[in-house]
Amino acid sequence: MALLLDNQFPPLPDNKEVDTKIFLESVSHLPPFFDCLGSKVFAPVKSDISGNIIKIKAVYDSDPEKYATLQQILEAEKITYGAEWPKAGATLALMWLKRGLRLIQVLLQSLADGEKDENNPNLIRVNITKAYETALKKYHGWLVQKIFQAALYAAPYKSDFLKALSKGQETSEEDCLAKVRQFLVNFTATVDAIYEMYTTMNAELDYKV
Amino acid sequence: MALLLDNQFPPLPDNKEVDTKIFLESVSHLPPFFDCLGSKVFAPVKSDISGNIIKIKAVYDSDPEKYATLQQILEAEKITYGAEWPKAGATLALMWLKRGLRLIQVLLQSLADGEKDENNPNLIRVNITKAYETALKKYHGWLVQKIFQAALYAAPYKSDFLKALSKGQETSEEDCLAKVRQFLVNFTATVDAIYEMYTTMNAELDYKV
Ligand SMILES: CCCCCCCCCCCCC/C=C/[C@@H](O)[C@H](CO[C@@H]1O[C@H](CO)[C@H](O)[C@H](OS(=O)(=O)O)[C@H]1O)NC(=O)CCCCCCCCCCC
Ligand SMILES: CCCCCCCCCCCCC/C=C/[C@@H](O)[C@H](CO[C@@H]1O[C@H](CO)[C@H](O)[C@H](OS(=O)(=O)O)[C@H]1O)NC(=O)CCCCCCCCCCC
Repeated sequence: MALLLDNQFPPLPDNKEVDTKIFLESVSHLPPFFDCLGSKVFAPVKSDISGNIIKIKAVYDSDPEKYATLQQILEAEKITYGAEWPKAGATLALMWLKRGLRLIQVLLQSLADGEKDENNPNLIRVNITKAYETALKKYHGWLVQKIFQAALYAAPYKSDFLKALSKGQETSEEDCLAKVRQFLVNFTATVDAIYEMYTTMNAELDYKV
Repeated sequence: MALLLDNQFPPLPDNKEVDTKIFLESVSHLPPFFDCLGSKVFAPVKSDISGNIIKIKAVYDSDPEKYATLQQILEAEKITYGAEWPKAGATLALMWLKRGLRLIQVLLQSLADGEKDENNPNLIRVNITKAYETALKKYHGWLVQKIFQAALYAAPYKSDFLKALSKGQETSEEDCLAKVRQFLVNFTATVDAIYEMYTTMNAELDYKV
């Protein structure tokens, strides 16, 4: 579980504001997650998510004090972009990034909860499908949904996926899942906080790609 | 036809060796071709092709005299990479790039020849499918083939595609196709020459992705 556990998200502060710098550092370890899926088919997904991170980082780097929290980015961009907002800038990048994060979170949670296809206990399609339906499906038109369905066949076996997550460390499936559960605590709290912020600030959009 | 015609490939010299610098300058105008297809679904294809170009350019820039022709790149890399070659370096990047170029060439040729689905004369699926089968299908496993089939539904109407190719210039469909034919002369000769070089140098591979 090196990949995940060595890069735990830190706990949120009491006011639930997400520190931009810490967030960027934490999510920078996530694109390799898509390599764990084991197929080059996922390269476009990885590059979409990396693009989101780069965009948010560029805004942060332009003025680290002004953009110290994710909340401050949204508030500042709301003013800068006017009518174009929230479909602009780091606000848009984070809107999509959080959906990818939610997908990863629901997928890991579903595995940690032992949800499985009884007829194919070593497949994770049922877990990925649940995560996709929760996080992304409604933002995808029928074509991208169809491509997703095809891509699903490239998903790795559960045993290989868990092994990949724990890269180089010998550990039982149960040990691995225990560590996933530990990773999920702060990760889920962070993703939830970002979703709440989008709702509170009325920054969520539901257009389809 | 601004996009294509303003950026004609120059004629090949008599020895049919392709000048690297001129080639790189000519192909640099091709990735926007995938924007003409009109859907963001093609972004991964565009970025794959752009990646090939960047890789070849990096090799060229490292020593423009040594790598003055594409032939010289393959010959030098054959020595440098030993047993790894031809699955390495700019040789690998050009191996894939030429397939994308062939796809574009066969697609444009098929349109120029008036090949069409009589029941759907304004669709170009039949032309794209022919181009895909000629250039790429055998290098794709069943999953990527399936994704291609889905992506095909994102292909534009013929009228919109030709209009996009002639960006900003008012011109009839026939004018446009005449210009496509003109573009194809040197473009086809260049692509053919690269294919011949891969055959002659025994640099072609047929593994699937
Ligand atoms: C052989 C020929 C074939 C050719 C065709 C190939 C077609 C391939 C199509 C692939 C689609 C790749 C996924 C990317 C989809 C993206 O379109 C969406 C929206 O992407 C957002 O769009 C915004 C503008 O609207 C901004 O540009 C955002 O960018 S901004 O930073 O500039 O603001 C950008 O992220 N992102 C998404 O839907 C996010 C996807 C997240 C992860 C999904 C995980 C799935 C896991 C699956 C496991 C089984
Ligand atoms: C919502 C969740 C969904 C998630 C999943 C989305 C899945 C999307 C899958 C998309 C596939 C995109 C196409 C890219 C395919 C690529 O895999 C191949 C081989 O790519 C090569 O691989 C080499 C190593 O083997 C080197 O890395 C080369 O790189 S190197 O430079 O490093 O040497 C690289 O080009 N290129 C190709 O097949 C070339 C494709 C060319 C163009 C095809 C045109 C099609 C036109 C279609 C019109 C209808």
